[in-house]
Amino acid sequence: MIHEKTRQLVIATPERKIILLVLDGLGGLPHPDTGLSELDTASLPNLDRLAGTSSSGRMQVVDPGVTPGSGPAHLSLFGYHPFEIEFGRGALEALGSGFELRAGDLAVRANFATIRADGVVLDRRAERPPDEENRRLCAKLEGGLATRFKEAEVLLLPGKEHRFTVVFRGPNLDPALNDNDPQREGRPLLEIVPQRPAASPAAQVVSRFLGAAQEILKDEPKANGMLLRGFSGLPEVTPFEERYGLRAGAIAAYPMYRGVASLVGMTVLGAPKNFTEEIALLEKEYANHDFFFVHFKGTDSAGHSGDFAEKVKQLEIADAMIPRIEALEPEVLIVTGDHSTPCIHKEHTWHPVPTLVCSPLALPSTEARFTEKSFMTGDLGTFHATDLIPLALAHASRLKKFGA
Amino acid sequence: MIHEKTRQLVIATPERKIILLVLDGLGGLPHPDTGLSELDTASLPNLDRLAGTSSSGRMQVVDPGVTPGSGPAHLSLFGYHPFEIEFGRGALEALGSGFELRAGDLAVRANFATIRADGVVLDRRAERPPDEENRRLCAKLEGGLATRFKEAEVLLLPGKEHRFTVVFRGPNLDPALNDNDPQREGRPLLEIVPQRPAASPAAQVVSRFLGAAQEILKDEPKANGMLLRGFSGLPEVTPFEERYGLRAGAIAAYPMYRGVASLVGMTVLGAPKNFTEEIALLEKEYANHDFFFVHFKGTDSAGHSGDFAEKVKQLEIADAMIPRIEALEPEVLIVTGDHSTPCIHKEHTWHPVPTLVCSPLALPSTEARFTEKSFMTGDLGTFHATDLIPLALAHASRLKKFGA
Repeated sequence: MIHEKTRQLVIATPERKIILLVLDGLGGLPHPDTGLSELDTASLPNLDRLAGTSSSGRMQVVDPGVTPGSGPAHLSLFGYHPFEIEFGRGALEALGSGFELRAGDLAVRANFATIRADGVVLDRRAERPPDEENRRLCAKLEGGLATRFKEAEVLLLPGKEHRFTVVFRGPNLDPALNDNDPQREGRPLLEIVPQRPAASPAAQVVSRFLGAAQEILKDEPKANGMLLRGFSGLPEVTPFEERYGLRAGAIAAYPMYRGVASLVGMTVLGAPKNFTEEIALLEKEYANHDFFFVHFKGTDSAGHSGDFAEKVKQLEIADAMIPRIEALEPEVLIVTGDHSTPCIHKEHTWHPVPTLVCSPLALPSTEARFTEKSFMTGDLGTFHATDLIPLALAHASRLKKFGA
Repeated sequence: MIHEKTRQLVIATPERKIILLVLDGLGGLPHPDTGLSELDTASLPNLDRLAGTSSSGRMQVVDPGVTPGSGPAHLSLFGYHPFEIEFGRGALEALGSGFELRAGDLAVRANFATIRADGVVLDRRAERPPDEENRRLCAKLEGGLATRFKEAEVLLLPGKEHRFTVVFRGPNLDPALNDNDPQREGRPLLEIVPQRPAASPAAQVVSRFLGAAQEILKDEPKANGMLLRGFSGLPEVTPFEERYGLRAGAIAAYPMYRGVASLVGMTVLGAPKNFTEEIALLEKEYANHDFFFVHFKGTDSAGHSGDFAEKVKQLEIADAMIPRIEALEPEVLIVTGDHSTPCIHKEHTWHPVPTLVCSPLALPSTEARFTEKSFMTGDLGTFHATDLIPLALAHASRLKKFGA
C-alpha cells in the first residue's frame, strides 16, 4: 500500500511547501443549449495559464460510478479511502450537518419521542413535529441543561421533524454504548449499558443526561423524551503527518471541512468567514506549515442551486485569487475539487474532477485549458484521489527514490 | 469492494432502464494496407452520432495483457472478476462448447476409452477416434440410454477425437465426486465415491449411468468405456439483482451467452435465432425488466474468420439496428464488446474495447467517432470491465450518494 511506503520515503524539506486548493463541486457537465460546461464557459485567465504549464489530469474521487458526499470525498483527497474508514451514524450525522466534530467527541442521532410515565415508548417520532418546533425543543433543552447537567459539554444540532443530533464533549467518552431505542412502540426504553469496561464513564454521562432531559421536557405534551441511536466518535486514522511527513494546516470557512481535516490530524487554522479571509489567513500562516488545504465552497453551492451563471461567476472569483496564492511561491500548487456538482444535475456526481499540479517537475500539455475535456489527455491521466498526496509529494521533490 | 457498496447505494427506479448491447469481439486493429481498423473503415452513422453525445472510453476486460475467452469476458462485463470465480473443468467445457448449462446441472469431461473385461484401462483415449466416430458413439449412447437409464436426464456433447462432455440434469446432483479415471493405463477404473454425504445421490446416479453405458458400448472394439474427469456444477455467485438492484433479462441467439447470463441470475428471454429476432424480443419484453443484456455475435465470427470486409459489414448491420433500440428510450444505452477480435489476428486479444455510455449525464467529446482511437481520450478513460455496471447505474441515476 502506497501510504505505508510514503512514510519510508518522505524527506523533511519544510521549505518546499504544498498548497491544495479545493474548489468544491468543481466538475460540471455541458449546458444543453451550448454544449459547454461551466468551466468551458467561464473566463479563467489564471487557471488557463497554469493549465498550460502544469501536469494535469482527472481525479477519480472514490470508485467509478460512485458519487461521494463531501466527507468521504475529502477523506479520499487526503489519501484515506472512504470505504476503509467506518463512520458511525452519529459521527456521520454530525459532520453532515456541518458540525465541526472533534477527536474524542461522542455523537449520537436522536429522535424526539413520546414516552409514557413508566418509560414505555408511545410514539417514536413524537408525531413528527415541524422543524421550528424541533428548534424550540432543542433550545429548551439547551437552556435547561445549563443548570441541570455539568458532567460534559452537550451540543444539540436540530434537524428535520423529530430528528436531531447530540454531541457530548468531554474526556473519556468511549462510544461503545447501546441505543436506548427499543425499535418498536409499546416497549420500554432500554437502559444505556457500556459494551466494554472503558465505556462505563460514558454510560454514566449519557444516563444522567437522559435523566436531566426528562426533567426539562416533562411538561411537553408530545416530545417529552428522546431515543438515542448510533453512538460514535470520529474514526481513528493514521495521522496525515505520520503518513506524509507534512505539517498540515486546514483553512475552510465551513465547519464540516474543518471537521474532516481535523479527523486526519491537520491543524485547523482559525474560522475564516469567506474565501477572502481564507486567503488572508493562508498568507498569515504561511511560514508555520508545510502543507495547506484551502477550501472554496462557492462552486458547489451554485451547482446545487442549478444556477449555471452563478457557478461560472464563482469559478471566476476563485480564478481571480490565484495570483495571491502564486505570490507565496509554493513548490507545488494543486487546484482540484472534491467531486463534480454539475448545474444540470443539481447534485454531486461521480465524474472525475479536473486537476492541475503546478510544479517545476510538471509535464504540461501546452495547449491545455482548465476544462474537463482538456484535462482528459493530461499527463496525470485519470488517477485515484488517494494518489493525489503522493503525487503532490513527488512534484515537490519530497519523496526519495524507492530502492537502489 | 465496490460491489458490496452498490448493494447499499442502489435506488429502485424501474422506469430508468439500462440496455447493454454487446457486439462480440468488437475491437479491431489496423489493416496493414490502409492503417484503418474495422471500426475506422465501417460506415456507422448511428454509432458515430451516439459517440458525439455519450460518455466514451475503453474497457479493460480482465487485466492488461490478458485475453479472455467469451465466458470470462462476459462474467467480467457483468461485474464478476473471472479470476475470482472458480469454474470446474466440466462446467467450463460445457459452457465453452456452447451448451446452456443451468444451475443444478452436473457436468463432467469424458474420454472414450478401451477397458478390459476386469475394468483395467487399456487405452485412455481409445486410439483417438476421428470426430465423426466420436459423434456416432455419442448418438449410440444417447439412443441406448433412452431405454436403459431413467435416473436423470443425460445430455452428451461430442468433442474432438476421444473427448466429449456429459451433463446430468436432475434434482440433487452435488458435484463432490471423484474422477473414475485412474490416470494411468494398466490400472483399474476407480469407483465413483461421494466426497461428502450430500453427494451420495449423485454418486449413485453416475455409477448407474456408467453401468448402462458399459452395456451400450460393450460390442465396440475400441471405445467400449469411458473416463470421467472434473465433475462440476455452475459456480455459485451473488445474484446480479442482489448486487445491483436490477431485474435483468438476457437476450442472446447463442446458448453459451444465455448460460453465462443465467449463471449470474439473469432471466434468459426466449431463444431468438438471430439479431433481428433479438431486437424484436427486446421490444416485446421491454416492460418486464430494468436491465437488458443483448448479444450480437456477427462481429466476433467475422473476426475469427479474418474476413475484414465481413466484419465491417457486421458492424454496419449492428449500427443499422441502433435506432430501434433508441426508440425504446432507455435511460442508459451502453454499446461495447466482450473483447477484441481483430481480423489480422483471427483470435481474441486483450486490447481494451471501445465503449460508449449514452445518458442524460454523459460528458461527451463532441468530435468523437465510434473507433478505438477516438475513444482513447473519452471521459471514461480506460476502465475495468467490472466497473461497467456501477457506471451504468450512476449514469441512470440509480445510485445514492455515498456518505454525507
